[in-house]
Amino acid sequence: MRIGILGGGQLGRMLGLAAIRMGLHVRFLTPSSEGPTDGIGETIIGDWTDPAFLTSFTDGCDVVTCESEWAPIDLLEEIVDGRIPVFPGSSTLRAIRHKGRQKTRLREAGLPVPEFVCCATLEDAASATQSFGFPVLFKAFRGSYDGYGNATVRTEGDVLGAWDKLADRDGVLVEAWAPFVRELAVMVARRDDGKCVVYPVVESEQRDHRCHAVLAPAAVAQSVAASAREIAIAAVEAVEAVGVVGVELFEMPDGRILVNELAPRPHNTGHYSIEACHTSQFENHLRAVIGWPLGDPSLRVPAAVMINVLGHRDGETSVASLPEALTIQNASIHLYGKRSVKPRRKMGHVTATADSLSAARVAAETAAKHIRL
Amino acid sequence: MRIGILGGGQLGRMLGLAAIRMGLHVRFLTPSSEGPTDGIGETIIGDWTDPAFLTSFTDGCDVVTCESEWAPIDLLEEIVDGRIPVFPGSSTLRAIRHKGRQKTRLREAGLPVPEFVCCATLEDAASATQSFGFPVLFKAFRGSYDGYGNATVRTEGDVLGAWDKLADRDGVLVEAWAPFVRELAVMVARRDDGKCVVYPVVESEQRDHRCHAVLAPAAVAQSVAASAREIAIAAVEAVEAVGVVGVELFEMPDGRILVNELAPRPHNTGHYSIEACHTSQFENHLRAVIGWPLGDPSLRVPAAVMINVLGHRDGETSVASLPEALTIQNASIHLYGKRSVKPRRKMGHVTATADSLSAARVAAETAAKHIRL
Repeated sequence: MRIGILGGGQLGRMLGLAAIRMGLHVRFLTPSSEGPTDGIGETIIGDWTDPAFLTSFTDGCDVVTCESEWAPIDLLEEIVDGRIPVFPGSSTLRAIRHKGRQKTRLREAGLPVPEFVCCATLEDAASATQSFGFPVLFKAFRGSYDGYGNATVRTEGDVLGAWDKLADRDGVLVEAWAPFVRELAVMVARRDDGKCVVYPVVESEQRDHRCHAVLAPAAVAQSVAASAREIAIAAVEAVEAVGVVGVELFEMPDGRILVNELAPRPHNTGHYSIEACHTSQFENHLRAVIGWPLGDPSLRVPAAVMINVLGHRDGETSVASLPEALTIQNASIHLYGKRSVKPRRKMGHVTATADSLSAARVAAETAAKHIRL
Repeated sequence: MRIGILGGGQLGRMLGLAAIRMGLHVRFLTPSSEGPTDGIGETIIGDWTDPAFLTSFTDGCDVVTCESEWAPIDLLEEIVDGRIPVFPGSSTLRAIRHKGRQKTRLREAGLPVPEFVCCATLEDAASATQSFGFPVLFKAFRGSYDGYGNATVRTEGDVLGAWDKLADRDGVLVEAWAPFVRELAVMVARRDDGKCVVYPVVESEQRDHRCHAVLAPAAVAQSVAASAREIAIAAVEAVEAVGVVGVELFEMPDGRILVNELAPRPHNTGHYSIEACHTSQFENHLRAVIGWPLGDPSLRVPAAVMINVLGHRDGETSVASLPEALTIQNASIHLYGKRSVKPRRKMGHVTATADSLSAARVAAETAAKHIRL
């Protein structure tokens, strides 16, 4: 069985490794190869908006999925015309890619989200800002990730600058500041027939608008965890996703959960599952898109902590610092095989499992700190 | 960094997956490809006894290792002439490949082994048989594995047949029957500087002379486990192995441990370590041959059971039965990507982790039973 995967980044890499373990073949299509899928199945590099190219890519694939919500799934669906399953489908991606549409869909489904207004004009944005009170968040409708495409508006004087920077032809999303106590995340794997499994609730810590650490399980009250999992499932059902979806959540001071945003694919906050869960998010993504029975998402260890390894310079990747990191016991090091390193670029991650979050954290942080690619 | 691996079977496949995770590149050399390393790094197929071919294979490799003790390491060492590290070295393989030499080396190092005699003639074999008393084991000096190359001699009438079947130009190994209560195994990872780490003692159950199940940890007395680990380290030191060595042991009724045999590479009885240990045997083999710090071999779960998936027919591999196996929770399925299936051929394995050996065993056995490739 051959799985076609649109995209060639680290998520594709980890999907590929999970696929091979189960005896599946993988073929990646990516507009430019940075290295992560080199040496894993086949990687085809070319213009993925070219129908002829997409057609030849799909030849021999039994199912096609993507590791990026920006993949040309619409075009692909047209081309395969039902002959090959494509998951997640374009209607799911359309509902998720546009931040305004995504939030609206979630709110319409009755899910708790921060207050927001889709603002078509500068005047709308200014008035929404005034009604929410400072600070507010301006978010670009398209293409934002890891803090890019977002701006915190703290005074009236920030409004115009944020608008100019982020507004697209249809405006900008203006969102009330949610004074959360913690950011949580839940992975949900869902099949086309609606069956799904839910991963444990994890805590995600940001540094400089980028995920730094993931703590599994999150040290939240049981009622909060239960509510987070319920809301995550409902959010995934609201967009009818198939595959794994990363659901980012806010935990409010009173224990309420708000949905922050969805990613229709394996997610950085789910990497811990490779070592820590009976079935990783990557394996369950594959099982879901193939239509196979979903695997047990529960933890097989008491605690796990994942720390991202970011680039600190521009240049070629080096593994010179790896031996020092490898001295840290019970830490698993994942490098993404990117040929070049850039400041803040996600180059790898470390997951440590242990009897307690604090022990896992020390190991993972120490190992990650040693890695200078 | 590029690792050259001689051999292209399932051990190479799992070494390759571990290597990629750490950002290493792998290149396999194999006389014929059966599928397992397809789509993992590069696989070069050709005559590995051809010096020119071996030379071009080693170009660009930073270290070379093997996944089979039958790889032409002698020739390779000559070719690279110290320019590239080659582990395990030919002196280790020479000490292990020949069953008589292996047993003699272990006995000379003061290690407990079953009584044996290297018999150059039929008369020697008959006389050794008589002195041990029935039953005895006849073992071919070269090329035996998984019950092939062994014969149990129960009466005087069996001697000639066993000799004719198994004796090489230098005779045959005649071994006294060891009335063991359990077969145990221990993986040891050792570096060139002598540093080593030892995996937990596991129990290995055979069916029809072939490993069926591995139980981790073995339910043995602490003193037995301690002695097994000590003896395993001493055995690996006796052959100066670098990399992972699988040490097969017998537990005798009085708790004594005998060494059965060594495999100078990751071993079937160590596959459980992928899910169950902080560092898998494959990762530690790579770390050892590169000279990197060795990782924590301890269990990260209370218990794990591995069950081998064997072929039951001749033909092309099919994954049709996989969905049924995937319904078994907390079982991880590994298929080796072999293009053709044969009766008794090792096609994959299942590892389940759980709070108890009995729970892990039920899950692993049930999942494995469903897989009909």
